[in-house]
Amino acid sequence: MENKKEIFAGIIVIGNEILSGRTQDTNTTTLSIWLNSLGIKVQEVRVIPDVEKIIVDTVNELRKKFEYIFTTGGIGPTHDDITASSISKAFNLTYGPHKEAMSILEKYYKPGEFSEGRQKMAWMPTNANLILNPTSGAPGFNVENVFCLPGVPSILKSMLGGINHKLVGGDPILSHTINLRTVESEIAKSLSSVQDDNKEVDIGSYPFFRAGKLGVSIVLRCYDKNKIDKCNLQILKFIKEKNIEIIES
Amino acid sequence: MENKKEIFAGIIVIGNEILSGRTQDTNTTTLSIWLNSLGIKVQEVRVIPDVEKIIVDTVNELRKKFEYIFTTGGIGPTHDDITASSISKAFNLTYGPHKEAMSILEKYYKPGEFSEGRQKMAWMPTNANLILNPTSGAPGFNVENVFCLPGVPSILKSMLGGINHKLVGGDPILSHTINLRTVESEIAKSLSSVQDDNKEVDIGSYPFFRAGKLGVSIVLRCYDKNKIDKCNLQILKFIKEKNIEIIES
Repeated sequence: MENKKEIFAGIIVIGNEILSGRTQDTNTTTLSIWLNSLGIKVQEVRVIPDVEKIIVDTVNELRKKFEYIFTTGGIGPTHDDITASSISKAFNLTYGPHKEAMSILEKYYKPGEFSEGRQKMAWMPTNANLILNPTSGAPGFNVENVFCLPGVPSILKSMLGGINHKLVGGDPILSHTINLRTVESEIAKSLSSVQDDNKEVDIGSYPFFRAGKLGVSIVLRCYDKNKIDKCNLQILKFIKEKNIEIIES
Repeated sequence: MENKKEIFAGIIVIGNEILSGRTQDTNTTTLSIWLNSLGIKVQEVRVIPDVEKIIVDTVNELRKKFEYIFTTGGIGPTHDDITASSISKAFNLTYGPHKEAMSILEKYYKPGEFSEGRQKMAWMPTNANLILNPTSGAPGFNVENVFCLPGVPSILKSMLGGINHKLVGGDPILSHTINLRTVESEIAKSLSSVQDDNKEVDIGSYPFFRAGKLGVSIVLRCYDKNKIDKCNLQILKFIKEKNIEIIES
């Protein structure tokens, strides 16, 4: 694992409805789990409003910072859907009807139903690569390392399969979880010395309440299974010494 | 409403467990709804990892950009809880045992149970203002315009009541929702011209699937009830002309 390769991604959630608390974002979790499975680590998420300048600036800042950027939201037919025009501006590309997208949507709708409103969904950077949408016709798109997806969670999920082959992941990040019937302060000191002894393993400690009882999940994350195993043994050792119960999950 | 006063906030969600997709963040929604009720608009959310330099840089960037900053996560007793030490560094303040916090926790635990691990929860900028925690003892804290709260949603919620009086809100943001049995492309053009005619009202359009049927929620947000009412009438007019059904919610 000496030449371990880390690939990072950023997520930009575009939408006033998330910032106002009206809508609970779940796309971040969906994207993070999917990207993890491809060996890509999400390093930052930003939730920003439907404001062109903020979208342009955020995309231009983050696309230089991470290998991949995913945006969610703002690609529908209404006036508040400004992701496609903002991305065109960020990359200094022509915003207009995309030939292939127009042809896909023309076939998707019944004759005479491909209205002006629906045609807007084919407007994007004219040379973008499309991300096909098996659920509802209107495609997402990709320019360089930026992938633009819709905000509706079920539609977003259905489109991920069409991007897999476009992404080059790093070494997959492995994880191992130990659930304990204890409180964090009981194990904090021992866990800290295990972390000092296993610098390449990312050890997370997360308290939980389940069925009215307190517990702690310890999550070990690393690219190297041997390193996780070594770290796991050290934790099991101090757990036994402290007589802490392990909860089978 | 000529001297309308807008107050903005930023939220910083600190935690590898959110970025990995292991934990679904819900604190953003909780904070946004609560802040809205106080006349404070969340303008940006960032989710960042448990890395000191990133926390310090993000806090220092955002605290200059918005009136209020709220951080969630990273204030427990374990080695991965580095929010308090990072905030001390961001403000160049002494990180150490906070007298009042020590005294609160000493009383909270049974004699002999206030272990070293638990004492860590009283370490923070030594001159910070405390945010009391009615659920589980360990307080949050506040330095200038930055408010640091825990990551566990139920505990975070229980602490908000203790901050209300420290925040000065702007004019409350009013909202009105119209749910329609239609699709966005049907109303996109009309809605766009209503938006052009009502520039001070923020009109959002959100498609939904409910009980197997498609619909669209139109959300009007503004500081001025009269402006919302005027906008609402214009929308009801075109809805009637188009013979679109309104769904009572």
